[in-house]
Amino acid sequence: MQLRGTMREDSNGALSIGQINTQALAKKYGTPLYIIDQGCIESNISNFKSWFSSDLVETEIVYASKAFINGYICRLVAENGLGIDVISAGDMDLLKKIQFPMSRVYLHGNAKSKQEIKMALALGVGRIVVDNYDELQRIREICAEYSYRANILLRVNPGVETHTHKYLRTALDSSKFGISLYQNDVLSKIKQLSSDPYVRLMGLHCHIGSQINEEAAFIRTVEIMLNFCAEISAQTGIGLTELNFGGGFAIYYAKRDTPPQLSSLLPAIVRKAEEQIVKRNLSLKKIVIEPGRAIVGEAGTTLYKIEAHKTTYSGRKYLMVDGGMADNPRPALYNAQYEAVVVDKLSVDKTERVAVAGKCCESGDILIEDIMLPPTENGDIIAIAATGAYNYAMSSNYNGLPRPAVVAVKNGQEQLVTKRQELQDIHSCDVATDPL
Amino acid sequence: MQLRGTMREDSNGALSIGQINTQALAKKYGTPLYIIDQGCIESNISNFKSWFSSDLVETEIVYASKAFINGYICRLVAENGLGIDVISAGDMDLLKKIQFPMSRVYLHGNAKSKQEIKMALALGVGRIVVDNYDELQRIREICAEYSYRANILLRVNPGVETHTHKYLRTALDSSKFGISLYQNDVLSKIKQLSSDPYVRLMGLHCHIGSQINEEAAFIRTVEIMLNFCAEISAQTGIGLTELNFGGGFAIYYAKRDTPPQLSSLLPAIVRKAEEQIVKRNLSLKKIVIEPGRAIVGEAGTTLYKIEAHKTTYSGRKYLMVDGGMADNPRPALYNAQYEAVVVDKLSVDKTERVAVAGKCCESGDILIEDIMLPPTENGDIIAIAATGAYNYAMSSNYNGLPRPAVVAVKNGQEQLVTKRQELQDIHSCDVATDPL
Repeated sequence: MQLRGTMREDSNGALSIGQINTQALAKKYGTPLYIIDQGCIESNISNFKSWFSSDLVETEIVYASKAFINGYICRLVAENGLGIDVISAGDMDLLKKIQFPMSRVYLHGNAKSKQEIKMALALGVGRIVVDNYDELQRIREICAEYSYRANILLRVNPGVETHTHKYLRTALDSSKFGISLYQNDVLSKIKQLSSDPYVRLMGLHCHIGSQINEEAAFIRTVEIMLNFCAEISAQTGIGLTELNFGGGFAIYYAKRDTPPQLSSLLPAIVRKAEEQIVKRNLSLKKIVIEPGRAIVGEAGTTLYKIEAHKTTYSGRKYLMVDGGMADNPRPALYNAQYEAVVVDKLSVDKTERVAVAGKCCESGDILIEDIMLPPTENGDIIAIAATGAYNYAMSSNYNGLPRPAVVAVKNGQEQLVTKRQELQDIHSCDVATDPL
Repeated sequence: MQLRGTMREDSNGALSIGQINTQALAKKYGTPLYIIDQGCIESNISNFKSWFSSDLVETEIVYASKAFINGYICRLVAENGLGIDVISAGDMDLLKKIQFPMSRVYLHGNAKSKQEIKMALALGVGRIVVDNYDELQRIREICAEYSYRANILLRVNPGVETHTHKYLRTALDSSKFGISLYQNDVLSKIKQLSSDPYVRLMGLHCHIGSQINEEAAFIRTVEIMLNFCAEISAQTGIGLTELNFGGGFAIYYAKRDTPPQLSSLLPAIVRKAEEQIVKRNLSLKKIVIEPGRAIVGEAGTTLYKIEAHKTTYSGRKYLMVDGGMADNPRPALYNAQYEAVVVDKLSVDKTERVAVAGKCCESGDILIEDIMLPPTENGDIIAIAATGAYNYAMSSNYNGLPRPAVVAVKNGQEQLVTKRQELQDIHSCDVATDPL
């Protein structure tokens, strides 16, 4: 397994994260347990800031919170100067509670409710990223009724093909997201907005997908978006000031992944944007990216306890662990691959070819299909790396399993940031148990 | 859409369930909303009981609660005389709270913890279904320590091939579940159990998968299991008294599904078992099946509100609704297909070919890829049928969405059984929001 962030092998061959022994964390907080490597997140943020910077225009890093959201991570990104993108009333409710600076909030979503739009306007979120014309009309009506003027970005679909998992591609022409910039009426619609009393069109947004490895796809997107700004300027006279290129930066999960080198890709995006802005004399003042997975993915590690071993008739060896698709549905959803170690056996030879099976009553609940590990015993703790994104965020109570706790670690300190659900929390919304 | 259970089209062309207008339910309780058709469940249970009955042996119907579990459904199946199968401490905690008769509880799972086994023994659950030898040893140790004797079934894998979705097949030789009955040592292990002071081997369990359409696979399983009982009897002298054939009975979701006729399949299973018991002079006293989806699947309907319409550049029409993969991950997980109607337009011509897209920020969050519906407007309510199984059970707070409410309906009466989460419930486990 590739050691990520502050992961280290100590002198006893045991895994530490943030200078904290992971075996001790498993013992203290129980398993399954999500560990968040705060130093790794801070380092990722620092890299994004230094690599995505420009002398010509303002640059902003916006954390895509759908990857992982709780009060702690929102505070952490706020303190590190990032913006945040969120989707729902639930997300905004949390931001309000932890006093996130609302001007740095981007509201996303392809089906925003009236309630959510009103909430966003009342809270003063920085930008509403408008997905479709129905939503635009809804925003205008709410602004008219409550005397707001909304600062919006229009989400457009640049039609860039990427080779990531089907579910994760978001900018194909048949995608549910955004408005194709090849659509005939898009320029006339944009022109209408230039004098709209209810919305202020600040710029455009796009997002070409998730877990994208190809650097060329990002650069091509920048080109297309800047071309389109030039076209808007030429055809409508509107000088947009902001461009948001979305996220989708791949990370390393396992051997098949070849994530882009952000140290070269991010500056290349900035240079490409600067070059086009100068060449075409564009009015753009700000470029934005929205990494989520690339900020938190590799900072997360899940600890599981091995409950049982089994070798099937066909010879497949299983390690059965005490979590599974309820805390990490990504292998079942996306055929996602992960790496793992036995936390106190980093220096032991990996002589066993095993599958790591989850605890849920589904054949598909296999966390890792095929991995080499040292010989193990029941009670051993396994660490699966790169679970910081789309694990806690997608976790459920399937099979009556409580959502695990989240512990942040840094420089030898640890902090429980989200506690494990109690058993009674699982059905806490039940109100009537008697049949009709 | 096929009308299921007590679904009816009223004189105004509107959808009612249990004689309750669904539009009114959406208005009263909000959307997304899970509706449970109690009459449909009771009718399914009644059918199972009459079709799975024998004069020769006892028959038991055990509800596989992983499909849908809350206090209400557990009470309902208890009052209807069913057993229940559960997986975890969370499930058992609920059963205890609603005073489910513990002798009718089956504890399943491939990675049972020590805590769960102790809890099951302390509560007196009827049967622990043992998945593997490590678990068996754990049970024996706990029984030795706390002076219990556990009534167990041994889960075996009969190796029956079925053609359902890869994730849903559970009895292939490489499956994580059970012990292959072709394994060399299985008879000697069973023989050891005959004189075990800590466990009482009551019989065998198997489960060949989920959403299985092929009747022949079920019948073949019964044959194999009874053959194996005969072999055990001949080789070890042990006369098992119970056989549990699991569940996996398919239901109708959409046109590609051809579920088995339970009215002929269930009697055929019983006849096959009876025939073998008599022919081979077996000591079996009880046969058991574990339907989950077949009890609750078609009894569930989800109501969504249309928030927006969009036609993409390539001409694909989307209806964007206010729920999605957070309340129904099955389309993303299994490529599951569903049927739907616009609840007040059942008699309007279906002239629009659309995709029903969920609200989550994922391209894969499409509830229905391709369906003909009448022309719709924002605010219209869509009902997606057959969402009773693996929807609420698998629901998450992904994208900050609260888990929807569940309302039971029957004979013109309605009852909120599980309330919608409040926004503040979503992050109720947060304990520290300040970074380290």
